[in-house]
Amino acid sequence: MTRATGEQYALLTDLYELTMAASYFEEDMHDEATFSLFIRKYPSDRGYFVAAGLEDALNYLATLRFADDDLAYLESTRLFKKSFLDYLKTLRFTGEVWALPEGSLFFKDEPILEVTGPIIEAQLAETFIINAINLQTLIATKAARSTVAAGPRRLVDFSLRRTQGIDAGLKVARASYLAGFVGTSNVLAGKLYDLPIFGTMAHSYITSFASEIEAFRAFARAFPQNTVLLIDTYDTIAGARKAIQVGQEMAARGQKLRGVRLDSGDMAALSIEVRRLLDEAGLADVTIFASGGFDEYKIARTLAAGAKIDAFGVGTKMGVSADAPYFDCAYKLVRYGGRPVMKLSTGKVTYVDKKQIFRHYDDQGFMAGDSIGLRAEALPGTAPLLKPVMAKGKLLAPLPSLKASREFFLQEFAKLPMQYKSLANPPLYPVTISPALSRLQAEVEARVRRQEL
Amino acid sequence: MTRATGEQYALLTDLYELTMAASYFEEDMHDEATFSLFIRKYPSDRGYFVAAGLEDALNYLATLRFADDDLAYLESTRLFKKSFLDYLKTLRFTGEVWALPEGSLFFKDEPILEVTGPIIEAQLAETFIINAINLQTLIATKAARSTVAAGPRRLVDFSLRRTQGIDAGLKVARASYLAGFVGTSNVLAGKLYDLPIFGTMAHSYITSFASEIEAFRAFARAFPQNTVLLIDTYDTIAGARKAIQVGQEMAARGQKLRGVRLDSGDMAALSIEVRRLLDEAGLADVTIFASGGFDEYKIARTLAAGAKIDAFGVGTKMGVSADAPYFDCAYKLVRYGGRPVMKLSTGKVTYVDKKQIFRHYDDQGFMAGDSIGLRAEALPGTAPLLKPVMAKGKLLAPLPSLKASREFFLQEFAKLPMQYKSLANPPLYPVTISPALSRLQAEVEARVRRQEL
Repeated sequence: MTRATGEQYALLTDLYELTMAASYFEEDMHDEATFSLFIRKYPSDRGYFVAAGLEDALNYLATLRFADDDLAYLESTRLFKKSFLDYLKTLRFTGEVWALPEGSLFFKDEPILEVTGPIIEAQLAETFIINAINLQTLIATKAARSTVAAGPRRLVDFSLRRTQGIDAGLKVARASYLAGFVGTSNVLAGKLYDLPIFGTMAHSYITSFASEIEAFRAFARAFPQNTVLLIDTYDTIAGARKAIQVGQEMAARGQKLRGVRLDSGDMAALSIEVRRLLDEAGLADVTIFASGGFDEYKIARTLAAGAKIDAFGVGTKMGVSADAPYFDCAYKLVRYGGRPVMKLSTGKVTYVDKKQIFRHYDDQGFMAGDSIGLRAEALPGTAPLLKPVMAKGKLLAPLPSLKASREFFLQEFAKLPMQYKSLANPPLYPVTISPALSRLQAEVEARVRRQEL
Repeated sequence: MTRATGEQYALLTDLYELTMAASYFEEDMHDEATFSLFIRKYPSDRGYFVAAGLEDALNYLATLRFADDDLAYLESTRLFKKSFLDYLKTLRFTGEVWALPEGSLFFKDEPILEVTGPIIEAQLAETFIINAINLQTLIATKAARSTVAAGPRRLVDFSLRRTQGIDAGLKVARASYLAGFVGTSNVLAGKLYDLPIFGTMAHSYITSFASEIEAFRAFARAFPQNTVLLIDTYDTIAGARKAIQVGQEMAARGQKLRGVRLDSGDMAALSIEVRRLLDEAGLADVTIFASGGFDEYKIARTLAAGAKIDAFGVGTKMGVSADAPYFDCAYKLVRYGGRPVMKLSTGKVTYVDKKQIFRHYDDQGFMAGDSIGLRAEALPGTAPLLKPVMAKGKLLAPLPSLKASREFFLQEFAKLPMQYKSLANPPLYPVTISPALSRLQAEVEARVRRQEL
């Protein structure tokens, strides 16, 4: 799953991709099509998106093929003719992809990725590509917002148990690290993506011992270099006093208690009191780690209330993007056989043809606005953001490492003016449509209306 | 992934499961522990839960083992001693599991599953088990609510593109079928779980042709037995008229148009008008299929407005359980070494010890209330719901097929009185705590308070 290939997942698609493909095959329609992936709307409080998931999408395209047992299954459905199944047997993705590098910031209606290739190949990839990019972009965006709330404090992904499945558990760890988290509790994600992993103990550990302090002592024996004690199992302040006792016992042995963790109750009041107790006991360098229902909103509220917290475990609400658990992410045909195309369905605009995003910067290097234009345009004084990443079905260059993408994100995020990072009701980042694209859009719309209505 | 094994996913766990295990190992703590899985709260508008995901949890337990490269990774973290890693090498799950069969209805605080075994084995499984059961239970519950809203109309899972990852895409197809959907658009789920699959065409199909009616004709040529035409690409009513024309052309060839699909706009008004046009054209048996943002709320609103819709494609909002994207699902130590245990953390109650759910029925066979008691209790006139499913690490009997679990769910759901199925603010289903469990709970709490506070 973690290196999900197009061979494993050729059938991970909506049936209609295959029925459409069968009809294209029957009609001998193999002209070049371009599909554009974009997000239509900002969900509540979102004003930017963090691009993520491209690696999975490209890996899928590079390895897409139908295995014999997949073809046998399709045959068993009695929907498809043998000639079409024979065609699928040899199908590979032979097209090209332009995309935003992972870690890029983008805005609504902007193409994150455009796929061009023979229509059957480019159409079949729709479901997998949306799935891969929607999830990681969703999570990277939520994680980036959490880092805004936390300021310099460290954030660790704690979401695995409540992510929506196994794949999400792994991808959340990856995407949150990309967006500035320092690591994850997820051991398999640590192994697969080379991420720092974090974790010490649960409440069950405490309750399995005859007493809380015996549990603390046992953990300090096993992990003298990595002792973070969970202190809220029975009563946070009573737990803090026992942690201090164990911290002092460790100090007497020349060891150091690293931290305590709060997981329930009034985090601001408790952390202030625990900090005071630790400091008074000469344990000023013991850090306070907090977990339990945190996301950007609760982090901001807790810090605004004066909490003395050094790091947060950020779990479920980030891991499912609870306040916005999906994006209105679409992959739409924008050009076929040399002809720009669009649908007119109520309330849904798709910009036609192969496109490019052009970014404007101000004198200090801050992002000042974007223009969506035609790919062939050149808008002076702007930087084009979509890069060619795949041609003839092959990667044009090795993809950046996750660490490199994380660095890229951090640099890009620093260029986004603060007002757009507001956690609630951010102002709209300016995105305009280039005159050439506007003209073409109007022409195509007029043509379609004339013909179809 | 779809047959996710404990060998593939031994490391799909929070690091703290392994650090706790290492400490238990150091302390020579191998006594029997019981963990209880339950949901603490009803999210908005929920008043029951549909149990799902047990098959994955049991399959994981039956196959749990650490592969050499997993152990090599753990060694590379420098957190663990060689003696512990050697112990992990031979670790298998040797314990027992009591659980609700998939498709059972249950309520907050009730144990869905209880795992008993040597503490390291039972603790390690926490993350995977929560992840597996939380997701499928979440989706089965949302899907069951959707079937309540739809009444006799058929529902098809259309969510794959926006589910949170690949695993979720497959599990959503499975869990929604379990809860009464008739099938899915997800071809791989169809193959793996033997589900009916559905789908015909997207807007891109229509826009790739020179005109809408040519697209309709091409599809009817390729799939004369399975023609459902998407009619909203340009204008739903204009599309309906073209579909009627193609339907009449098919009829002239002795073929039958199966249906039309609406995907945007005012679904009630449009479906009424489209139904009228079809009926007037002698196409009364052409069905109307609707998709686009449906969940139980939109289905109910649309039908209340008089919509003439025969079947719904239910996508994103069901596939991520958008209004309640996670459950507060916990796996808590309730007994260790013969001693019932609990934590006291603020606002979170865990019922101690091995338990059972006892269900009361009224004279007509409707569910009348549950009691949570100790496993060893017998409450006259009630049915105990948790069944032993695994002992000594082995399944006690083959698990029911998905179709059998779906039948079981449909029977059980028919026994839940209608008032609890209300989509908004359902009344609280009565769940009591048995006197014996209440007494033990109070004793343990008093003991813990005496000792720890």
